[in-house]
Amino acid sequence: MQAKHKFSIALHGGAGTILKHLMSPALEQEHILALKVALDSGSRLLKEGASALDAVEASVRSLEDCPLFNAGRGSVFNHEGKHEMDAAIMEGTLGKAGAVCGVSGVKNPVSLARNVMEKSPHVLLCGEGAIRFALEQNLPLESEEYFFNQVRYDQWKEAKAEQNILLDHSSSNSDKKFGTVGAVALDMNGNLAAATSTGGMTNKQWGRIGDSPIIGAGTWASQESCAVSCTGHGEYFMRAVVAHDIHCLMYYKGLTLHAATGLLVHDKLKRSGGEGGLIAIDKLGNIAMPFNSEGMYRACCSQDGQEQILIYKS
Amino acid sequence: MQAKHKFSIALHGGAGTILKHLMSPALEQEHILALKVALDSGSRLLKEGASALDAVEASVRSLEDCPLFNAGRGSVFNHEGKHEMDAAIMEGTLGKAGAVCGVSGVKNPVSLARNVMEKSPHVLLCGEGAIRFALEQNLPLESEEYFFNQVRYDQWKEAKAEQNILLDHSSSNSDKKFGTVGAVALDMNGNLAAATSTGGMTNKQWGRIGDSPIIGAGTWASQESCAVSCTGHGEYFMRAVVAHDIHCLMYYKGLTLHAATGLLVHDKLKRSGGEGGLIAIDKLGNIAMPFNSEGMYRACCSQDGQEQILIYKS
Repeated sequence: MQAKHKFSIALHGGAGTILKHLMSPALEQEHILALKVALDSGSRLLKEGASALDAVEASVRSLEDCPLFNAGRGSVFNHEGKHEMDAAIMEGTLGKAGAVCGVSGVKNPVSLARNVMEKSPHVLLCGEGAIRFALEQNLPLESEEYFFNQVRYDQWKEAKAEQNILLDHSSSNSDKKFGTVGAVALDMNGNLAAATSTGGMTNKQWGRIGDSPIIGAGTWASQESCAVSCTGHGEYFMRAVVAHDIHCLMYYKGLTLHAATGLLVHDKLKRSGGEGGLIAIDKLGNIAMPFNSEGMYRACCSQDGQEQILIYKS
Repeated sequence: MQAKHKFSIALHGGAGTILKHLMSPALEQEHILALKVALDSGSRLLKEGASALDAVEASVRSLEDCPLFNAGRGSVFNHEGKHEMDAAIMEGTLGKAGAVCGVSGVKNPVSLARNVMEKSPHVLLCGEGAIRFALEQNLPLESEEYFFNQVRYDQWKEAKAEQNILLDHSSSNSDKKFGTVGAVALDMNGNLAAATSTGGMTNKQWGRIGDSPIIGAGTWASQESCAVSCTGHGEYFMRAVVAHDIHCLMYYKGLTLHAATGLLVHDKLKRSGGEGGLIAIDKLGNIAMPFNSEGMYRACCSQDGQEQILIYKS
């Protein structure tokens, strides 16, 4: 099939209280480099004619493998001191989707989500069962040492010690809480895809699941509108079915990508107290990366080949 | 506050291949009686001025306690011979929601979902963590004997034996697969609520989660549009974000409840191969109960006090 489109891709590494004066120049450079590596791994595939699905999986895997972001290797510790991860992937052509929640030890949850989509009759697999499925699919698992990270461990210890305070001062700890990674892409055949992956909230209890693995809340792709990956205070994103709401605003009301994503992030979510942001791309290759928090790790490569890698409000 | 509205309520006990010639008159009467008992438990509360939230919880609890329906006590066996249940509840005024997935041993998963909504900062809790939360909330747990049911056990044995065949002939087994219960209500103060509960699919593997506990897919309530509870082949309902799509068709495109629910069930889902149905109620008290399968256990009490209890296509 002849390529009719230019490709484009966007990704995020989470939103929250990311303040320039709290970030060392070295740490800032580390984040920018990691975002660049993840962007390249997706855009290189797209340039070679690969599918949007392959590209978003590759970019999210790159972010999962980097200890800086709260997903895969860099996942935060839950209340029991373990790592429980969630991920989802969706493609826009047929609306196929796969997701996993509450999985431990899986090296790349986004690839497990893709296996759920392509190798099972299901959309969402959970916990031990999802890990059994990963083993049947011969996906790599990793030990607890692989996921251990001193910074995350210290964050967890602090969160455990301050638990009662944390509940009342969540905004000051939001950087710890809203870590998620995601990617959206448009390939040269005009197909859209989205993927999201997260290690959840530091010190989370009771098997809490956020919006990341929920199709329509944190992750969505449809040829009729756009591809979306969210990051933020998951409960607000779930109750607002954010990603699907953007789809409906575009498809049913005719809003542009920028109008629809702006309405969600700066109006609907903001009014309800839902802090965070999202990345989205439409079938024309337009990219939106709005957020209502202090910062959002984000990067994109637009159709004209222009790259942007940003952290703070620009 | 003075009551300005008449109340109304609808509920379902699952959709699928329910054929009159395969049902004994005695079994048919048992189902009708159970639906009547569940309807009364909700409508009695509404008549006394209780909230829509109390009414849908009461009706769903009644269906969960009845061994005839695939939820709570009557839950089917998963691949490992256990019961893994999912449930969700949502209210339309503030858009608050709670849900649980993959829980075992909890007597009334819908009440656990309500506790998640009202007593935790989260929307969705999963597996062992959700059970720990249930224990902290002093919700009743039950032994395996409570959930044991010879008919379900025989269905499971048959499904296990025929596993390879089942995958190719799913339609002949759809009655076993699409069991779910749910309720939607409008109270005398004009508030809407929805609740859904399920024991999942017979012989399900890998911790599969369907649409029931997913806010926007199987369960939804908003004062801007309607309250919805779905039942059917969950994967199709999740990918189509059915309940939230009905909301958007009404809120963004101005469709009536009947037009929006009909479009989803008889057009969108039917075209994709998604078998099942749903119950929905709008803020005017209109009720819709469309399904594209052979039958759907359903009942309603409309604003004029008229009751309907139905199983087959009417």
